[in-house]
Amino acid sequence: MIAGSLRIDSARLASRIRKLGRIGALDGGGVCRLALTPSEKLGRDHLVAEMRGLGLEVAIDAIGNIFGIRKGRRPSPVVMLGSHIDTVATGGLYDGALGVLAGLEVAAALNDAGIETELPVVVAAFTNEEGARFAPDMLGSLVFAGGMPLREALDIVSIDGRHLGDELEAIGYAGNDSGPTEIAAYFELHIEQGPVLEDEGIEIGVVEGVQGISWTELTIAGRSAHAGTTPIRLRRDAGLAAARIAAGVGAFVREMGGDQAGTVGVLSLSPNLVNVVAESALMTVDLRNPDETALKAAEAKLSALVTEVAGQEGVTVKRRSLARFEPVDFNPELVGLVEEAARALEFSTRRMFSGAGHDAQMIARLAPSAMIFVPSVGGISHNVTEYTDPADLANGANVLLQVVLKQALPTNEGVHV
Amino acid sequence: MIAGSLRIDSARLASRIRKLGRIGALDGGGVCRLALTPSEKLGRDHLVAEMRGLGLEVAIDAIGNIFGIRKGRRPSPVVMLGSHIDTVATGGLYDGALGVLAGLEVAAALNDAGIETELPVVVAAFTNEEGARFAPDMLGSLVFAGGMPLREALDIVSIDGRHLGDELEAIGYAGNDSGPTEIAAYFELHIEQGPVLEDEGIEIGVVEGVQGISWTELTIAGRSAHAGTTPIRLRRDAGLAAARIAAGVGAFVREMGGDQAGTVGVLSLSPNLVNVVAESALMTVDLRNPDETALKAAEAKLSALVTEVAGQEGVTVKRRSLARFEPVDFNPELVGLVEEAARALEFSTRRMFSGAGHDAQMIARLAPSAMIFVPSVGGISHNVTEYTDPADLANGANVLLQVVLKQALPTNEGVHV
Repeated sequence: MIAGSLRIDSARLASRIRKLGRIGALDGGGVCRLALTPSEKLGRDHLVAEMRGLGLEVAIDAIGNIFGIRKGRRPSPVVMLGSHIDTVATGGLYDGALGVLAGLEVAAALNDAGIETELPVVVAAFTNEEGARFAPDMLGSLVFAGGMPLREALDIVSIDGRHLGDELEAIGYAGNDSGPTEIAAYFELHIEQGPVLEDEGIEIGVVEGVQGISWTELTIAGRSAHAGTTPIRLRRDAGLAAARIAAGVGAFVREMGGDQAGTVGVLSLSPNLVNVVAESALMTVDLRNPDETALKAAEAKLSALVTEVAGQEGVTVKRRSLARFEPVDFNPELVGLVEEAARALEFSTRRMFSGAGHDAQMIARLAPSAMIFVPSVGGISHNVTEYTDPADLANGANVLLQVVLKQALPTNEGVHV
Repeated sequence: MIAGSLRIDSARLASRIRKLGRIGALDGGGVCRLALTPSEKLGRDHLVAEMRGLGLEVAIDAIGNIFGIRKGRRPSPVVMLGSHIDTVATGGLYDGALGVLAGLEVAAALNDAGIETELPVVVAAFTNEEGARFAPDMLGSLVFAGGMPLREALDIVSIDGRHLGDELEAIGYAGNDSGPTEIAAYFELHIEQGPVLEDEGIEIGVVEGVQGISWTELTIAGRSAHAGTTPIRLRRDAGLAAARIAAGVGAFVREMGGDQAGTVGVLSLSPNLVNVVAESALMTVDLRNPDETALKAAEAKLSALVTEVAGQEGVTVKRRSLARFEPVDFNPELVGLVEEAARALEFSTRRMFSGAGHDAQMIARLAPSAMIFVPSVGGISHNVTEYTDPADLANGANVLLQVVLKQALPTNEGVHV
């Protein structure tokens, strides 16, 4: 058969998602598989069993990353495809799971077609991608990529007070394997977690990189005052200052346009009473841009805005950086490969940046990487109502299969097997 | 002696305030005498004993208002001076107490000077002015002024689930007396509860009336979205809409200038997470102006602002009026009398409107009324740190004494006694 005509089994992929979705299932929909909890252990056990069922060799590294290796004619480098199976506390069935289970489906499709690839194909599930139980997020891929010493990672304490190393031991996933050391290419299929593809009626998102992220917390100190008896000129209204900053962020983000995003997701006043001028306000500003220069410009605008408003309103503002990540660019050749593969399958495509973080951005430190997005209904994610149409899941998995074939087969096209 | 040279005893006034302040005293300062609680009963008992000690006849009406009557040559009309002795849960020693205790001090000064007035002088303490335990506030004076049927008031349920009528019975203050029926003039001395007098270095505030109040609650419904993956153009950001409205209120209030006040004291977002576009926001807008036409103009500006922002941000806004009171003008002759008396005592004065509600605005429905303000340090009130300098307390009480003499003596000046 012609490799280009090979397809995954969409019903089987949907079934894989349903099966994993039953592990840690919540009443009324969605799942809870917080990293390294008993329910996530069950998810891991299921995944390992599925890998073994497909004839993959399973390797577990010291941070608990799971690798299912389908041998190639050569032992190295490998083509890796993966994501994660941990979820947030009220997560959906697709975030992370799709990338791992589509990886299994790619292996199954290769098995079914009796294809021996030149390079090994490795399906990876990285530990604690969500960061919902242990901070930071994308931890397993970060450690795998050498971005954090193992010892430091094992010492991280969970929101429920447990050491990561102890929890790994407890569930039996503190492995001894090193995992693949040479990676020719890494591909991650993921739901978009945003509304763009659905809004534009596009089938496949060709992900060029991950936006840079800048999170700032602002603590505004004003002076509590009676709303009826304190003239405007004598106020130091922390609430008004917060509102002006939040509205100002909205304004400069719109003015910058392009891919600039800005969100004030947290804004709370104290004492938060109808007739009391707020004494203090706490707010966060989330700025994102795929371009580092533009992101820095947005940060400068925020800084100037805060200084201006603080001066005008007579309040003091304490600024604290909660997170700062530079944008990550994926490998242009692999990005082009994803685009070509999607078009060859006659899918509509759109190049885009990921607004959320993904394991791929960590693996990009080690190896050429790229991502494939499929639409999320309503753009909803990290929510039990997260949903992607089975046809979209299959589309994404077929693109994944094609790019794997392109990278792992000995030649790039028309391979007869 | 010359009536104009009569003075209250400032040390004794300070002592009266300290004594009442011990009843319901909080550790670390301030008092808690919520209306009709055991601690407020002790305050009432103390007040009644003080009144009797000064030879005043005590009358208690059916809503628990306490009147201490110092007889005049004629039985009627009376000159009334008063305020309230209930407090908020963490109140100060001056709000309300000053007006009542300065009334006692006026009676004491008249006693000491052996003055028999033409009209009776009545010291009043009205029930539940604060509204902290039973809504609405200014309840005792409202019922006394005929603004609410007694039966309805007695049926009000407290925040701790008790009927007002039962609580009045329980503390023994469900009286049978009608209280004075004809009132020639009502004067209320009160701390400013705002920073204006202190800020301008003025000793006596000549209160022309009480501002109109308009409270609106806005419930904004947008759409929850991922802050990283949802482009600005696809958002319905309830938080941004709330911030724009709050900033817009700040802007139009400054633009209107004059006595217009506007406060967004409550602003909360849901889910209030750094990386989630707010799905909903709850906020309140407190608008005040001494002029009804101007207050209506401010309300119209708010309404237009809400409509504009809701349209631009793609959110829906539910509006609910929480309170609406028209401004109250005090009696111009009595206001002039307060001003003259203060100037005759060589105090600096300033005409002003009260931003907070007071019993005087209820009594103004029945009888010519006016108020005297003294400075509040830092403008702080409804707070255990509320403080007014003893000299300022005495200044206010001396103005009160003078206006009482002007109204209650048979002639207006130079009376020898």
